[in-house]
Amino acid sequence: MKNYSVVGKRLPRYDGTQKAVGAPCFTSDVSLPGMLYAKVLRSPYPHARIVNIDTTKAEQLPGVAAVICHKNTTSKLFNTSATIVFTLPPLVPVKDQRIFDDVVRYVGDEVAAVAAETEEIAQEALKLIEVEYEQLPSVFDPKEANKEEAPDLQGPREHGKNLPGEKIHLELGDIQKGFEDADYIFEHEFKLPVQKQCQMETMAAVATIDADGKITVYSSTQTVHPSRAILADLFDVPYSKVRVLSPPFIGGGFGVRIGLSAKAEPIAIALAQKAKRPVKVVYDREEDFTSSDTRHSGYVYLKTGVKKDGTFTARMMKAVLNAGAYCSFSTETHGVLGCMGLSLYSCPNQYYDGIAVYTNTTPSGAMRGFGSPQASTAIEAQLDIIAEELGIDRREISKKNMMKVGGEWVLPYQCQSIALEECIDQGAAAIGWDKKGTFDNSGSVKRGIGMACGTHVSNAWPFCGDYSNAYVNIQQDGSVQIAVGSPEMGTGVQTTLSQMVSETLGVTMDKIEVTIADTESSPFEIGAHASRTCYVVGMAVTQAAAQVKKEALEFAAKLLAERESCIYCAQDVQDLDIVDNMIVSKSNPNKKISLREVTIQAQFKGEQFIGVAKVVPQNAPPWLAHFADVSVDTETGKVTVNKLVAAHDVGRAINPTIVEGQIEGGLAQGYGYALTEEILYDENGRQLNTGFHKYMLPTAVDLPELQAIIVESDEPTHPFNVKGVGETGLIATAAAIMNAVYDAIGVRFFEIPMTEEKIYMALQESLKSCE
Amino acid sequence: MKNYSVVGKRLPRYDGTQKAVGAPCFTSDVSLPGMLYAKVLRSPYPHARIVNIDTTKAEQLPGVAAVICHKNTTSKLFNTSATIVFTLPPLVPVKDQRIFDDVVRYVGDEVAAVAAETEEIAQEALKLIEVEYEQLPSVFDPKEANKEEAPDLQGPREHGKNLPGEKIHLELGDIQKGFEDADYIFEHEFKLPVQKQCQMETMAAVATIDADGKITVYSSTQTVHPSRAILADLFDVPYSKVRVLSPPFIGGGFGVRIGLSAKAEPIAIALAQKAKRPVKVVYDREEDFTSSDTRHSGYVYLKTGVKKDGTFTARMMKAVLNAGAYCSFSTETHGVLGCMGLSLYSCPNQYYDGIAVYTNTTPSGAMRGFGSPQASTAIEAQLDIIAEELGIDRREISKKNMMKVGGEWVLPYQCQSIALEECIDQGAAAIGWDKKGTFDNSGSVKRGIGMACGTHVSNAWPFCGDYSNAYVNIQQDGSVQIAVGSPEMGTGVQTTLSQMVSETLGVTMDKIEVTIADTESSPFEIGAHASRTCYVVGMAVTQAAAQVKKEALEFAAKLLAERESCIYCAQDVQDLDIVDNMIVSKSNPNKKISLREVTIQAQFKGEQFIGVAKVVPQNAPPWLAHFADVSVDTETGKVTVNKLVAAHDVGRAINPTIVEGQIEGGLAQGYGYALTEEILYDENGRQLNTGFHKYMLPTAVDLPELQAIIVESDEPTHPFNVKGVGETGLIATAAAIMNAVYDAIGVRFFEIPMTEEKIYMALQESLKSCE
Repeated sequence: MKNYSVVGKRLPRYDGTQKAVGAPCFTSDVSLPGMLYAKVLRSPYPHARIVNIDTTKAEQLPGVAAVICHKNTTSKLFNTSATIVFTLPPLVPVKDQRIFDDVVRYVGDEVAAVAAETEEIAQEALKLIEVEYEQLPSVFDPKEANKEEAPDLQGPREHGKNLPGEKIHLELGDIQKGFEDADYIFEHEFKLPVQKQCQMETMAAVATIDADGKITVYSSTQTVHPSRAILADLFDVPYSKVRVLSPPFIGGGFGVRIGLSAKAEPIAIALAQKAKRPVKVVYDREEDFTSSDTRHSGYVYLKTGVKKDGTFTARMMKAVLNAGAYCSFSTETHGVLGCMGLSLYSCPNQYYDGIAVYTNTTPSGAMRGFGSPQASTAIEAQLDIIAEELGIDRREISKKNMMKVGGEWVLPYQCQSIALEECIDQGAAAIGWDKKGTFDNSGSVKRGIGMACGTHVSNAWPFCGDYSNAYVNIQQDGSVQIAVGSPEMGTGVQTTLSQMVSETLGVTMDKIEVTIADTESSPFEIGAHASRTCYVVGMAVTQAAAQVKKEALEFAAKLLAERESCIYCAQDVQDLDIVDNMIVSKSNPNKKISLREVTIQAQFKGEQFIGVAKVVPQNAPPWLAHFADVSVDTETGKVTVNKLVAAHDVGRAINPTIVEGQIEGGLAQGYGYALTEEILYDENGRQLNTGFHKYMLPTAVDLPELQAIIVESDEPTHPFNVKGVGETGLIATAAAIMNAVYDAIGVRFFEIPMTEEKIYMALQESLKSCE
Repeated sequence: MKNYSVVGKRLPRYDGTQKAVGAPCFTSDVSLPGMLYAKVLRSPYPHARIVNIDTTKAEQLPGVAAVICHKNTTSKLFNTSATIVFTLPPLVPVKDQRIFDDVVRYVGDEVAAVAAETEEIAQEALKLIEVEYEQLPSVFDPKEANKEEAPDLQGPREHGKNLPGEKIHLELGDIQKGFEDADYIFEHEFKLPVQKQCQMETMAAVATIDADGKITVYSSTQTVHPSRAILADLFDVPYSKVRVLSPPFIGGGFGVRIGLSAKAEPIAIALAQKAKRPVKVVYDREEDFTSSDTRHSGYVYLKTGVKKDGTFTARMMKAVLNAGAYCSFSTETHGVLGCMGLSLYSCPNQYYDGIAVYTNTTPSGAMRGFGSPQASTAIEAQLDIIAEELGIDRREISKKNMMKVGGEWVLPYQCQSIALEECIDQGAAAIGWDKKGTFDNSGSVKRGIGMACGTHVSNAWPFCGDYSNAYVNIQQDGSVQIAVGSPEMGTGVQTTLSQMVSETLGVTMDKIEVTIADTESSPFEIGAHASRTCYVVGMAVTQAAAQVKKEALEFAAKLLAERESCIYCAQDVQDLDIVDNMIVSKSNPNKKISLREVTIQAQFKGEQFIGVAKVVPQNAPPWLAHFADVSVDTETGKVTVNKLVAAHDVGRAINPTIVEGQIEGGLAQGYGYALTEEILYDENGRQLNTGFHKYMLPTAVDLPELQAIIVESDEPTHPFNVKGVGETGLIATAAAIMNAVYDAIGVRFFEIPMTEEKIYMALQESLKSCE
């Protein structure tokens, strides 16, 4: 692989200082003159009809400026996830939400909202809203909701009762024949929990509307342009009359705000329209838990046919996911679950069937991994069983079956690079794989090692539309401005994009500024998700930078040729390059002129260097192998993870520190997915753990030593060989820990999180069966 | 001329409602969390050295966050006018100002500034700053300042003592021979006053600086990108690390804030850097009078050679202008004065010499007309004398000598259209020229009619660099977003630009939005001045719109060809057009598809329609004839203007209502220039009239009937035949009124404003000489 001078360097983060000093840079920090504060009244019932709602007393409370509910807001249907932008034909975007409806479908569903002079008054006013509910039958499990006798939650649907969208079916080869060819068939079902994104900043929006009705929204969305599309359609104004922007940062996303920030934006806008003043909505943590999308829980059934030597002959997956009360991205999540599940390994005969089913729980939507963690957890936990049964080294069975460059799979793009073998080898070395089976497990605390592999995507296509546009302009002093519609939600995007532009253009990092996430400063861009920013937006800024570099060098060549000084005469553009803000002759490095001088001269001739890129990407598979070293206290069921190692084929790390940070953050979420994190509901559909302390979000203190290993591969679809890394950090962590727990205590789990209680009970059960 | 469906229509103004309802849309409305308020201490002396300045007590006042003066701010030189951007080689940009200096050079010059929790505290703190001045000799008249014995105000200068910049010299033909060929020679000198822009919004800026030092300034500037250039250079950061934006409107400009808003921006930034909080600076009206640029006062000497038949043989102009204490645009103003003065009429032998001279008055800078009113006042007042002496009809002598298409002149571009004759004829008819000389002037109130002609530019080139860049994007719903760096300062630019884009693109006005004046949402643009926005920025948005239209039609043609429905098959792109948001076949208007459907389909293929225009304009001369009908009360000297008529060759009026508004506003300023407006200084260099009431700014009540007549001509350099109209409304008004006053009372004035007192005194004088 080529060596670069800026790309690949551990440069400090652009957004580091501002965040370190606590600068006001999030939506909740936005304060506009005359701004009101809003609070939302939410349903206490999982399913009910609003027979009557009386907001009179709330409206009369001094300091209340506006009260809205289903009676005085649009009844237009929409989807808080930007399916109108993302959903690719022939799939049809599902719209099944209203700002407020006269039916509520989960505990936390929106009933009304108040804008008032202070948050306290708004909160007080909520208590004065009188609502008469007629309770309706409810259902919480997707398998139950899929039964004929289940209550009908959304009325007649094109694809069947309680089905928000299409079933996804994938096939390769002949699945029947595959099983016939197998020496062994393994069949298991895995139950996956409701995980919550737990991003630091809760859902937030500040809306202001000018006298002509033009809407401006400061928003915590990950996707300003798609958000604008939803809001413009919902409020029936042209896209050009809505502005959505980040202020300038977002306090984490993890998928929860692809599209809108739950309903923060539409509620803020509807209140601002009514009150004719700016309105701020900031969800509290409890609301964020109950009323913003979660990861899809559900069931993954897995049937695998293998030869004696461990070669796969058939793989069948069936998934039933809980969509929750509204569709969000349920269709697309299925697509990813199926495709990633089938594409991790080569297998000639494959089959996938998936559905998502409406229930009366918080809607499931996008969360980091978007189907991949569910797939990998099942596949890699089962593969551990297969390897053990066949007596094959766990590493070897993964290597034997792993995807090959150009290998056949269900995806419409090609696998053009894979360094999974290196990931397995380097990860195994780092975790100390050789110690596996050698621990002294005679005491009550037993130690084990496990591993698991995974793959994912570098952008959203073919599951959603994916493309990127960007501006890169050289300013009149030779500094550079990049404008992109993608936000900074903690991923270091401004630093990474600047490194690619700096490398391409020869302008030093200190002179590059990145304007982000403002629909009025950037061309359309689908935002930060699908591990796509570095890959797709990176392509776009690199392309635009190359364009302005070419223009600047052409101008410089003309300028130099015009000059009398003979050292510059007839300078050929091919001979010129830009290095550290200087335009230099490659053939004679003593010939140089500053880019600044060239841009000043260009300006006098009315010449500007404005680069516009339009990119429609291919896709590229990142690969990863995770390793866990755990100790299980068999007397309490407590799992202590001693170390997690994650070796990732990232293509190329533009900024290794940022890439490691992404992987480590993913490991933390994977740790929680495996061991502690789960939203639980009581029998009335109420969430039991609506706070970090109750939800058991792991903290830095809980976490083991994390070791991220970057493995590079020569991915040809990206100018700097980048592959996606935003989501991959957690994809195989749960399975690695499951396999390590088995290695320690000899008990298999088919359900996560493996809480202390579950492990303790399982150990008791296994003791009983031994008796 | 071609007929259009949107261009040429009297559509309502985009910014009308917001301004009518008093929406908070100016810099003074900006309020940021934690914002401080600043006040500025100004020099009470016209010329002094600051021997000592002690800010200790001010700093100790509770509520004071920062105090700055020359001791703790950069001593870098700059120019509040963006000469670093505008001044074209071989001229060199003059930099002669500091934020604060240890020498003050006019009453109102900046000495120190305070940022505090409230305006009141800041004001109080100013009183606690102790300054010890050593007074220095001062001079107020440019001719005096140009003498050898004058005090030296700025130290050694390249072009001579007290000369801020280069002398401008222009020549055509042989001036000596021209005078030899003349039958008559006329020689006069005219004295022109200090006029003030009197824009409604005073100078204002709000600066905020992030933790990494990136500067954001909400500013009342007319030129966000050039302002950014000044500020970036001054504060030594890359251009890309400074953002300047309008919030979103400006309350008038008239040239006073080309570049910075006086020193509002640098003072706000320097205080924000020191206080580490946002800082707001809003000048009060008195400060705006004393400490922001004025129109250049001075002397125009005019010597004209004519044949008996009225043909000009020679024209010599010499101008000595008062630069005031700092250079601002003094060099460029001279250029325009000379070029416009020489180019109004054809004359084979021409000569111009001009200088601006430093004095100890408020700096002179850009003001609507930028040299042209000074030139036209002299030329058209003298031409009245010539016509009378030669016994030629005043209209005819203008027509006989007027510039011809392709005629020789000192300008580097061609005159390609002129409808001055129609302007003279239509204006004369409207004023009732035939009544001239027929009024019953036997009483003490005497009536007269006068006329004057003028010309100007449609952009700043060749006096400054001029070019424009713009984005025009079709959104995913077929609506359109325009992004330009030019501001809305009252000229209706968003409406006018949208009309041109609507006409070009076939998208209706309600779907078009214009993002203005934000350095981060637009490519470089030199801003609103030189009557250039409609002409140059209009060219840019039209060009970008044509580009995206072509792209959209090409995509539509492909899309239609792919469709099975045979009516669309093999649709040829040449056959397609966009009309009212529908893509239609020109050959079969029944074949149509909405642009919205096409853009949605395009999006699914990752296709975006992003238009970027880069325009380097030619220039085009607007022409005008102004007519005044006045009554003079010879007992009091009071002039009552009965009617003003202004007939303007505007090329084409994109929105006639807006064009008429521009002309009428100009007439009001021309009325004041002729009769009432003048900044006067006492012997200590203090302005005597620092408020609208003292300055005698004419109000709507004072003004006569104003009639704007639009004359269109087929200007070929603009896609819609536009010529500049922003400044022309006042260029010939003063001369027309001067000539009307002479027609009424038979006394010539060689000085404006013709105040009641001056007219009364002149009448007394003429009575004496008759005795």
